[in-house]
Amino acid sequence: METKITSATKEVIIGGDRPTVLIGERINPSGKKKLGESLKEGKLDIVRKEAKAQTEAGADILDVNVNIFGVDEPDLLPKAVKAVMETSELPLCIDSAVPEALEAAIKAYKGKPLINSVTGEEHSLAKVLPIIKKHGAAVIGLVQDDNGIPKTPEARLAVAKKIVERAEKLGIPREDIVIDCLSLAVGAETTSGTTALGTIRLIKEKLGVNMTLAVSNISFGLPDRELLNNAFVAACIAAGITCVIVDVKKIRPSVLAADLVMAHDKYARRYVENFRQRQQEPAQK
Amino acid sequence: METKITSATKEVIIGGDRPTVLIGERINPSGKKKLGESLKEGKLDIVRKEAKAQTEAGADILDVNVNIFGVDEPDLLPKAVKAVMETSELPLCIDSAVPEALEAAIKAYKGKPLINSVTGEEHSLAKVLPIIKKHGAAVIGLVQDDNGIPKTPEARLAVAKKIVERAEKLGIPREDIVIDCLSLAVGAETTSGTTALGTIRLIKEKLGVNMTLAVSNISFGLPDRELLNNAFVAACIAAGITCVIVDVKKIRPSVLAADLVMAHDKYARRYVENFRQRQQEPAQK
Repeated sequence: METKITSATKEVIIGGDRPTVLIGERINPSGKKKLGESLKEGKLDIVRKEAKAQTEAGADILDVNVNIFGVDEPDLLPKAVKAVMETSELPLCIDSAVPEALEAAIKAYKGKPLINSVTGEEHSLAKVLPIIKKHGAAVIGLVQDDNGIPKTPEARLAVAKKIVERAEKLGIPREDIVIDCLSLAVGAETTSGTTALGTIRLIKEKLGVNMTLAVSNISFGLPDRELLNNAFVAACIAAGITCVIVDVKKIRPSVLAADLVMAHDKYARRYVENFRQRQQEPAQK
Repeated sequence: METKITSATKEVIIGGDRPTVLIGERINPSGKKKLGESLKEGKLDIVRKEAKAQTEAGADILDVNVNIFGVDEPDLLPKAVKAVMETSELPLCIDSAVPEALEAAIKAYKGKPLINSVTGEEHSLAKVLPIIKKHGAAVIGLVQDDNGIPKTPEARLAVAKKIVERAEKLGIPREDIVIDCLSLAVGAETTSGTTALGTIRLIKEKLGVNMTLAVSNISFGLPDRELLNNAFVAACIAAGITCVIVDVKKIRPSVLAADLVMAHDKYARRYVENFRQRQQEPAQK
């Protein structure tokens, strides 16, 4: 299954045995004090800086999120989307829990964006899916519903099915839904990793849709987070995930290694090219 | 399924939802010129040094291999085994393609060793399995037969089945067989990684025996081999492998990260302990 996301000049295809698509996560004020403060003042210089840095680091899609207390998202999100479009040619993943902000940002966007996200909650399905349909966007579907986040792969599959069915009923094609299998801190719950990996395998087998997750959640609260993120992303890719929400600069080498292992990098072209790039900038590694 | 391997003083159990068992690969002259030269002279000082270093690095089992042109294996392998026993308390994996060398080394060994290896080839089954039975050892079964190395997971499963059946017919219990799923260079054959991972999943499902492989073969001929080895070992562990033949010092952090992701490290105890150890010896990392 192939999910197409576009900007004014670029097309990114998720899935279909292609290399793993990297969604850059760094335009998001969560845990980033400076970015948060600047967004509250309506300043977008850090947003532009992060857009440029992630594009240079090899991101395929950029997530844009301005959600922090004190920010008027329906006002600021379209502005942030425009600022990123002026800086990078990459397609965008427009990220908000506020449907009005999503729609305002989609209107400001040139291309077919990925929307982050709809959930299996009734209020979310009712508000977000019509926006996706109306604008012909693609959407990330989070496997949580009105009862919270399911604890087993089977229950997460059920929520994914519900989202896909409700979307299809509205005329949104299945290939425009990317299921977020949810990665939670393994330091807080021992089975977080196995549940996420089990969900990926089950959804791949039963639904066949593209999947994503925010890799670094797995390592929250633990030391040497990169080591854990690298191991987890390799396991996710081997299990069948097709795109990941990540700190691109840090994790891209491990993703390319996993893509090579999974036969998604013929002649090791991408892997070797990235190695050469890293050799040329050892200080920045 | 649990495979028990012992030394005079230690027991190692492979499988049964335990952390991945690490078999230290460095006592092996293949690609190690100095070790090879010293073995030809009958000297075992490097063998002792490697035994000590791998034990300190956190190996669970030490592989002992003295196979190099010019060495009389049935004479030297028992001596090497004794030298390692004098240096380390760890159980051993006795590694040779020469049945007479295996039997001589088993006789010199105190405990229940892991024997590396029998294959699905008729001459190997006929010569090695009776030695395993006679001495109550455990054995690694390589998924290759008289037709070579099968290219698909299904064909590798068939060879694994054949080895298990022939062993059981001789009275060797299934839990004393560890199948080597075979890792080959992904730089030479694009599907090496997917075939190995598919074999692991299939054997886990159909045979349920413990499995191993020599991780670093995957990266032969490619740059930044550790990056690729780390991604591959995480994928193998997530797929269900239960022990790995590795350069312990280099790969142990990634194995511990994968074990944590796979819920084989309650409270992240081993992961955090290893992190602290690495913090204390940054220069040696």
